[in-house]
Amino acid sequence: MGISLAELARQCQAELRGDPRHIVERVATLEDAGPADITFVADDRHRAQLTTTPAGAVILSLRDADRFAGNMLVTRNPRLCYARVAALLHPRVQPAAGVHVTAVVDSAAVVDPSATIGAHVVIEAGARVGAQAVIGAGAYVGSEAVIGAGTQLHPHVHVGARCELGASCIVHAGAVIGSDGFGFAQDEARWEKIPQLGRVLVGDDVEIGANTTIDRGAIGDTCIGRGVKLDNLIHIAHNVQIGEDTAIAACVGIAGSTRIGKRCTIAGQVGINGHIEIADDVHFTGAAVVTHTIREPGIYSSGSPLETYQSWLKNAVRMRQLDDMARRLKKLEQKLMMLSEGGKVE
Amino acid sequence: MGISLAELARQCQAELRGDPRHIVERVATLEDAGPADITFVADDRHRAQLTTTPAGAVILSLRDADRFAGNMLVTRNPRLCYARVAALLHPRVQPAAGVHVTAVVDSAAVVDPSATIGAHVVIEAGARVGAQAVIGAGAYVGSEAVIGAGTQLHPHVHVGARCELGASCIVHAGAVIGSDGFGFAQDEARWEKIPQLGRVLVGDDVEIGANTTIDRGAIGDTCIGRGVKLDNLIHIAHNVQIGEDTAIAACVGIAGSTRIGKRCTIAGQVGINGHIEIADDVHFTGAAVVTHTIREPGIYSSGSPLETYQSWLKNAVRMRQLDDMARRLKKLEQKLMMLSEGGKVE
Amino acid sequence: MGISLAELARQCQAELRGDPRHIVERVATLEDAGPADITFVADDRHRAQLTTTPAGAVILSLRDADRFAGNMLVTRNPRLCYARVAALLHPRVQPAAGVHVTAVVDSAAVVDPSATIGAHVVIEAGARVGAQAVIGAGAYVGSEAVIGAGTQLHPHVHVGARCELGASCIVHAGAVIGSDGFGFAQDEARWEKIPQLGRVLVGDDVEIGANTTIDRGAIGDTCIGRGVKLDNLIHIAHNVQIGEDTAIAACVGIAGSTRIGKRCTIAGQVGINGHIEIADDVHFTGAAVVTHTIREPGIYSSGSPLETYQSWLKNAVRMRQLDDMARRLKKLEQKLMMLSEGGKVE
Repeated sequence: MGISLAELARQCQAELRGDPRHIVERVATLEDAGPADITFVADDRHRAQLTTTPAGAVILSLRDADRFAGNMLVTRNPRLCYARVAALLHPRVQPAAGVHVTAVVDSAAVVDPSATIGAHVVIEAGARVGAQAVIGAGAYVGSEAVIGAGTQLHPHVHVGARCELGASCIVHAGAVIGSDGFGFAQDEARWEKIPQLGRVLVGDDVEIGANTTIDRGAIGDTCIGRGVKLDNLIHIAHNVQIGEDTAIAACVGIAGSTRIGKRCTIAGQVGINGHIEIADDVHFTGAAVVTHTIREPGIYSSGSPLETYQSWLKNAVRMRQLDDMARRLKKLEQKLMMLSEGGKVE
Repeated sequence: MGISLAELARQCQAELRGDPRHIVERVATLEDAGPADITFVADDRHRAQLTTTPAGAVILSLRDADRFAGNMLVTRNPRLCYARVAALLHPRVQPAAGVHVTAVVDSAAVVDPSATIGAHVVIEAGARVGAQAVIGAGAYVGSEAVIGAGTQLHPHVHVGARCELGASCIVHAGAVIGSDGFGFAQDEARWEKIPQLGRVLVGDDVEIGANTTIDRGAIGDTCIGRGVKLDNLIHIAHNVQIGEDTAIAACVGIAGSTRIGKRCTIAGQVGINGHIEIADDVHFTGAAVVTHTIREPGIYSSGSPLETYQSWLKNAVRMRQLDDMARRLKKLEQKLMMLSEGGKVE
Repeated sequence: MGISLAELARQCQAELRGDPRHIVERVATLEDAGPADITFVADDRHRAQLTTTPAGAVILSLRDADRFAGNMLVTRNPRLCYARVAALLHPRVQPAAGVHVTAVVDSAAVVDPSATIGAHVVIEAGARVGAQAVIGAGAYVGSEAVIGAGTQLHPHVHVGARCELGASCIVHAGAVIGSDGFGFAQDEARWEKIPQLGRVLVGDDVEIGANTTIDRGAIGDTCIGRGVKLDNLIHIAHNVQIGEDTAIAACVGIAGSTRIGKRCTIAGQVGINGHIEIADDVHFTGAAVVTHTIREPGIYSSGSPLETYQSWLKNAVRMRQLDDMARRLKKLEQKLMMLSEGGKVE
């Protein structure tokens, strides 16, 4: 049950060179691909393998086309073409509609008949689950929460009361959407809880990684824009707003009330302060610590480079002396200036 | 079903200026507040809106009182007053007592009749659940664990065997209390597990964030003091002790056997080494890395500042040369000293 | 039901000094140990307590043996001996075999009769659960997943479709094995999902901490070698490979397609870039950021040292001037050289 190269080329708008009737059955890596497989050139270091691969077809860009003698799909964006070919050859299977006998669905919840509700799911009163949505085993949908059409919650996902997810979202196992924000008022030494009354609003086509947590707003809402992609173990605090098509890698933490623009990319372990704004098209490199508002698009970084422990020990202690060093350097420059002018150094 | 300003002022010990019979129904942001809403001035940048808001009442401090013409609650601590007003207007609803028919409660567990046990909860033998405690859907309470009166476990929370939570705690979805500590002995290259035999002991009035993990002690216990507040995705290793009223923001990691004092605040992504001690009233700024014992109260930091990627590339490489730079600077100072004294530079 | 020192010494291959018939019942800390307890000297600061402890026996090394007058097990590796003594005195209790009545096990899954399947567990079609495996309450085992003999999944663990765990593994609560990798192709501003078709393959004797996430490979597999130990809240991205006996502390993030060698140790909060290689026997200190391939065994570090906030403010701003400082230092050296040679300074 493979697909012909002619059909793949047509559906992915790629140029076919080679045999249009050749059938491929699956995607594979360039190393592993055989005659029934289609593969693609992911990066420069794999290009050399083009001459030897017995792959049934290869997806590549125009500039690589004359390096390969076999069947190929030529396209401006091989990675995107690969994504589409892979989705055609390995389509996600929609599970049978219906509510598992062990699920606990409140009689005041509204579940579309085409949705799939897994084993041991709990859906509270007033919640709404859209057409063809899939709620994985053991997931929890709080009261008056909304799960959009075609959205998929993997097992053990938590969607708190009144939170809303758009259509065609994917939420991975263990993610928590709608936990309380971390908000307290100080009464002498003690912390008094500030009720967290807002919601989490998630746009269409958002993906949320495993064990990621998104807190509800304190009064207003926490908002995740259309097309945002969140990796695993990310923390999004209360009242954060994330613009459309922004992608955030794993282990990132974003503090409260910060607004992130559209089309940003945030690499792993980045930390972003609260109550600041990040413009559209800003990119942070891994483990950067972002303490202030960024108004200009561009790439931003922080952090010190890796070195051997022995060398690091010697250099790190100097970081505590940097201001002193800078002052001494300035003084030396002044002295030398005076000296070279024939003046006296005090 | 709102509350009169007179009543709110009385219960929150604030001074009322304006109409004591005015009824407010909910809290709202300064931007959104209408005549049935009460709001507060959160920070300086919102103060300008005071002149235009149609809010039914505003909570503010004495120094802001003459900037507003409408009803107000005047108080020394507007944030605390807001927390109390919000709790009065939006009280948490205690769910109906009882054990859900799908919950699996061991016959040798003791559950107070006023407690609420949600769908698909599992409570093991010897566990005790206090009065008015709420155990959310799918939560797990291990054998001989103790859940204090009024404590609330959100869905999917895990409390391991023999761990104990005090009264009035709140634990958010997916938090794991009482996983094994990360303890191994090395046998040549292989790691042999050291049985983790201790417990986690959590005091009264503690809040624990979503997907946070607290490991049980290796022999003794891991102890979380009264009033401690933990945000999401925090890791607390075995035998850590955290003093009363300390607040810890998201994504912090604390390694084994470290003792943290009382009233500390630890910002997001801070990392704290194992086997060290942090005094009372110590504050760490975001992403600080704490490698040694801190005996003096105060604010501590580490990390390098954010800059553009191009500029960071040039500066970061110099960090590896810092010790060399410091030595060259010293030598220059000595040479210049000799030169200015008329001596000869070797 | 304690164990005699003779028996412990025999089973742990330690040298017994003292009464071979003395019975100990449990392990305890050096502070708390009484006559029925056995303890060990964990580090130098506890050694002084040896003179006063009433412990029934102490595990220690030859060089500490003459500091203690009571019963002792003398061994080259006290920590390893302690691990074994603790396991003998506090053995893990294998729960009764069988499938809990509330578990949902697909008729096309194969569960060994000696395995234990807890309450509300879900096991999908084609999954296989080995002999004496223990699947904790609420855990999820996806279709065609494999759980090896003697492997223990704590409550709420998620093992995705087709993922495979070896024998004698321990997976702590909330861990997610087999979530989708974070893979997208860009189509103008939008991200298009690349199907994540690979698996997670976990070797024998692996321990995985609470709420840790391991993504499945994009095409090939994510591989965790035999004997690897992972702490809590770790993120392992798609197609990562981790060598045998490597140990990774909490809050570490490893980006996609990176290969980590054997016997490495990675301290807490370390971040490791994607598509790089780390040799065998490499060790990273806490919070290090690893951006490039490491070919030599050794200890590596990055990061700036903790200091008071006031001092940090002054030093951190200078990090942005480091390249400028380095250039000025170089120029000063040149000028001084010319000056000392009697030349003219421009």
